[in-house]
Amino acid sequence: MPPRVPQLSQAREALTRGVRVRNEFGETQEAQIPAERPLTLYLDKQELVTLMTVGAAPELLALGYLRNQRLVHSIADIASVQVDWEVEACSITSRSGIADLTQRTAGRRVVTTGCGQGTVYASLMDEVDNAALDAETRISQGELYALLDAMRLHDSLYKSAGSVHGCALFEGSRLLMFTEDVGRHNAVDAISGWMWLHGVGGQGKVFYTTGRLTSEMVIKCALMGVSILVSRSGVTQMGYDIAERLGIALFARCTNRHFLQYTAPERFVAEPLERLSA
Amino acid sequence: MPPRVPQLSQAREALTRGVRVRNEFGETQEAQIPAERPLTLYLDKQELVTLMTVGAAPELLALGYLRNQRLVHSIADIASVQVDWEVEACSITSRSGIADLTQRTAGRRVVTTGCGQGTVYASLMDEVDNAALDAETRISQGELYALLDAMRLHDSLYKSAGSVHGCALFEGSRLLMFTEDVGRHNAVDAISGWMWLHGVGGQGKVFYTTGRLTSEMVIKCALMGVSILVSRSGVTQMGYDIAERLGIALFARCTNRHFLQYTAPERFVAEPLERLSA
Repeated sequence: MPPRVPQLSQAREALTRGVRVRNEFGETQEAQIPAERPLTLYLDKQELVTLMTVGAAPELLALGYLRNQRLVHSIADIASVQVDWEVEACSITSRSGIADLTQRTAGRRVVTTGCGQGTVYASLMDEVDNAALDAETRISQGELYALLDAMRLHDSLYKSAGSVHGCALFEGSRLLMFTEDVGRHNAVDAISGWMWLHGVGGQGKVFYTTGRLTSEMVIKCALMGVSILVSRSGVTQMGYDIAERLGIALFARCTNRHFLQYTAPERFVAEPLERLSA
Repeated sequence: MPPRVPQLSQAREALTRGVRVRNEFGETQEAQIPAERPLTLYLDKQELVTLMTVGAAPELLALGYLRNQRLVHSIADIASVQVDWEVEACSITSRSGIADLTQRTAGRRVVTTGCGQGTVYASLMDEVDNAALDAETRISQGELYALLDAMRLHDSLYKSAGSVHGCALFEGSRLLMFTEDVGRHNAVDAISGWMWLHGVGGQGKVFYTTGRLTSEMVIKCALMGVSILVSRSGVTQMGYDIAERLGIALFARCTNRHFLQYTAPERFVAEPLERLSA
């Protein structure tokens, strides 16, 4: 019998809006800006949180939020995820109730760094230390470059409207899933939701983000079992510390052929640059 | 009699840390990463929130947080702000107690976009509509360019370590205050704290940020009475909508001589580019 998966709505709205702007020559032109709309999540009619999102993948965002906040144990526990933009609400229904929901959402509030979801409950930090990361996952220099090329060429909301962060999941250099949001942590949550929905584990996967590798980004990847993170931006101290402790490889400041590897050198297979360019 | 101002500690810690990294040629080098440390705020011994901060201006950050969350009415109500990094705590003491503190901090949680402080209480949105913005504040094209040049040349943590956002307050093209943090909204809160402490109003001021002009950024500036915002990054839809409603001028995508003005054209004094370059 196949595993039970939730029924998802397919709510879609325009992701950008054109506005009139004036440039340095006094000329009027049209510029695109990303949409930014509130989405309030209700789990079995209990209000959880209001997320500000561009709205590209609201059902996956809701699933990923539930997973990364550890509010629901298994995807099989969720019967449906219904987004209705008319009322800016996402209604999640469990199959047989969620134990202690009120108690478990009353955790301490921690405001995190430069992120779109400053609400990781303190208990998450404990779970991270139990994250099961395989020792085998590696990335070769050629795969890293192929991944960066794929991201550079990928069509994106960022190219048309800016002001969004993108996240992607790769297997080697093969793109599995790409998503963008005004909140960086919404984007990683949508990736988590996609992995959860399709039963995809973190082994052998590589996570890419346009944003910084902060503590919250590293924690969420660890919870997904992903042990290689790539960013064209930088690294913060807590992101570094957690990655080093867990043996997660951080590649940052990646542009064209340049990159810096900060942690877990054993997860990288160097290849001579001359050979790769040939 | 001069207005009473709080006593502030002068807690300082290293803002960056050197770590060993490996580049694309397999060479080991040292890279700087910004510090990222928790700071838990206590107001009259009641725990408010834990902020993740680089630690550049923790006392001003605490003041700005209190002000922007509308938790304390007047700077004269605060007796002292004492930061102790040993215990990662900031203890704020009021002169004569804060009425209804427990009740007022129990607001609904709204997670905001791409920011370092996803906890603006819902009631803030109401206050914004009452924000008193003067109609006179303007910026000329020459002042805008001088401001951008000043920011480009300013020494910064970003240049040495990356992964931080900077915010600045200008009067015309004169820099009044500059600060950086791993959380963008910490940086704007520190600016607010500085304005509050020194009794500086928003009239005639220009706010600069390296980050996006999101709803929360525009709201915080409106609450400070600042009606001109400049960013080298972009604009999101809710930031745009609020700015347009309040008559706040947004200048975004500013690099070198290029910029786009999104809102409030009446606040801009155009000057021929040829004249400015001469």
